[in-house]
Amino acid sequence: MMEFSIQRDYFITQLNDTLKAISPRATLPILTGIKIEATQAGIILTGSDSEISIEITIPNQVEGETIVTVNELGSVVLPGRFFVDIIKKLPGKEVKLSTNEQFQTLITSAHSEFNLSGLDPDQYPLLPQVSSDDALQLPVKVLKNIIAQTNFAVSTSETRPVLTGVNWLIQQNELICTATDSHRLAVRKLKLEEEIEDKNVIIPGKALAELNKIMTDSDAYIDIFFASNQVLFRVNHINFISRLLEGHYPDTSRLFPENYETKLGLDNSEFYHAIDRASLLAREGGNNVIKLSTGEDRVELSSTSPEIGTVKEEVTAKDVEGNHLKISFNSKYMMDALKAIDNENVEVEFFGTMKPFILKPQNDDTVIQLILPIRTY
Amino acid sequence: MMEFSIQRDYFITQLNDTLKAISPRATLPILTGIKIEATQAGIILTGSDSEISIEITIPNQVEGETIVTVNELGSVVLPGRFFVDIIKKLPGKEVKLSTNEQFQTLITSAHSEFNLSGLDPDQYPLLPQVSSDDALQLPVKVLKNIIAQTNFAVSTSETRPVLTGVNWLIQQNELICTATDSHRLAVRKLKLEEEIEDKNVIIPGKALAELNKIMTDSDAYIDIFFASNQVLFRVNHINFISRLLEGHYPDTSRLFPENYETKLGLDNSEFYHAIDRASLLAREGGNNVIKLSTGEDRVELSSTSPEIGTVKEEVTAKDVEGNHLKISFNSKYMMDALKAIDNENVEVEFFGTMKPFILKPQNDDTVIQLILPIRTY
Repeated sequence: MMEFSIQRDYFITQLNDTLKAISPRATLPILTGIKIEATQAGIILTGSDSEISIEITIPNQVEGETIVTVNELGSVVLPGRFFVDIIKKLPGKEVKLSTNEQFQTLITSAHSEFNLSGLDPDQYPLLPQVSSDDALQLPVKVLKNIIAQTNFAVSTSETRPVLTGVNWLIQQNELICTATDSHRLAVRKLKLEEEIEDKNVIIPGKALAELNKIMTDSDAYIDIFFASNQVLFRVNHINFISRLLEGHYPDTSRLFPENYETKLGLDNSEFYHAIDRASLLAREGGNNVIKLSTGEDRVELSSTSPEIGTVKEEVTAKDVEGNHLKISFNSKYMMDALKAIDNENVEVEFFGTMKPFILKPQNDDTVIQLILPIRTY
Repeated sequence: MMEFSIQRDYFITQLNDTLKAISPRATLPILTGIKIEATQAGIILTGSDSEISIEITIPNQVEGETIVTVNELGSVVLPGRFFVDIIKKLPGKEVKLSTNEQFQTLITSAHSEFNLSGLDPDQYPLLPQVSSDDALQLPVKVLKNIIAQTNFAVSTSETRPVLTGVNWLIQQNELICTATDSHRLAVRKLKLEEEIEDKNVIIPGKALAELNKIMTDSDAYIDIFFASNQVLFRVNHINFISRLLEGHYPDTSRLFPENYETKLGLDNSEFYHAIDRASLLAREGGNNVIKLSTGEDRVELSSTSPEIGTVKEEVTAKDVEGNHLKISFNSKYMMDALKAIDNENVEVEFFGTMKPFILKPQNDDTVIQLILPIRTY
């Protein structure tokens, strides 16, 4: 017997964020719904696909303006996407919701009236409780950056489930985020300003991708709380909860070779676009292979697709050190890595034709991208 | 042994338009390509899926600026989408193309160099010749309007192929365009200013949809030439050719009833949005059925989906004449028709619960939309 009215525009924004946790292919039918709870403090929306959950609180007032008026406390679960479609199309500025004892829900706005069959909120799974002690606090901007620089490298294959997540290692007040699909590896390091307990967890890549979408206020700070098998991200009025992946993340620290044989200094954008063009043919060839060979002051890229043709690109190098080198690699991995470098000058260190090579921003050790070459020469 | 250089930006725009005629699933492999011809007058691009063909002439100069420099005349066929992707990503402002006797084509721009296997242009089908006499000339704006008001109503089923096209009937200096899928019918009439011979042709709906996409200059005029089984649309430097559908279009003039039993005057937008909302439920119910019943000064719309719920909408009528009425219809047909009305005031004339009804803009007989009701009452 819940009853409340709410500003429609504000409601839509929050519903859209809640929807991001909901999968239309939920195994538990009630999880295709949104749980709506009218409390004294406002409306609480919950969406979940059992891997991630989003809980949003809509306060009664925002900046002095009344958003919600609750007449009767209560709750109901309504069909997610369908309910949001209705709210979006209603004619009035305000929407009124009321439920009866059978969870039939009447939705009215101006001359429009919907009557939906709701579900019993007691059937909705309880969200995991995560203690709010010992938070790691980061600017949203920084967290979005960390996600952009590591998340693309997680594995999409379930053969080694731990590799579908990003390893967050906190030790000696440094956060080290690592992702790899065993063909390439991305690392981002961050010195933490506050004292925090050591941690070693694996956060699912999909969860980080969804979290990234709902963090729109890049001036905000986000609080991160770790439990034994859950992590809670709290930003403004949103709680985002993800389960952690179980298992041990491989120790990748020994993968990084030292003493390069060849080192290149390149313009990131010029190098990226040359590879982008060469990859048009590499893709048609079906294997994405691009060959690179170094010259005195330049790099030559080439690719061949027997049926279609060949491509040759020349990129001017700002710096070439060490031996001349020929090496082949997957164009997609290289483009992903260059995007993650986030600096107009990129350094590439090679350790021989058959060994993994490394990309870094110039004069910056917080981002490291490692790629395995392809054997062609 | 064709050789020319061309401004890349201008080339991309024209290639994109040419691509619109090309289907990646062409039955004749050479039709996945673009034919490129270097002539003394400039470059001619041709794309075709054998149903429609687009021929674009890129002149040597545009507004005094040199676009094309032809060094050797000749022609080649290059893989369509792939070639366009390359041109889009090249680094320079200018692109140079040259072919050898085996139609190997060298594409260069700044430090980038592609070598593609081209095909013999003699293998490319000849475009149908359409005589340029006796043109029907229309402003592009008007033609786009005619297409928007009729094309949506063509049949998507091949069981009666003539219904997949729009009937263009020219008689007594009036153009009458008719489309129907046998559940609803759309008519648009246009008085012609110039004398023109009577015609009765059927233009494929798909061709009109593609034509609509490439007519971007709405201040231009388009010339339309009819041959026995082809139609040529010429606008600026583009020739768009479509085959005509064979067969006899049904005579629909007798379908329009007279002397309505009930007549409504409604606000188009208000009515449209009320149906849009009601159709959310109608769609979930699987049959798109909306019920309408008239009152003293209003219309009530409703729909039910047994598992999900019900919806009720009230729309204020500006005018209600004749008997009270209850009728059911497909929400999609109604929304399509209201969009085609293109006037804020719409008149709906009913001839009884079981008979087709008519929608028209207020005080305007050039657009008529007819819809068959659904038997529910």
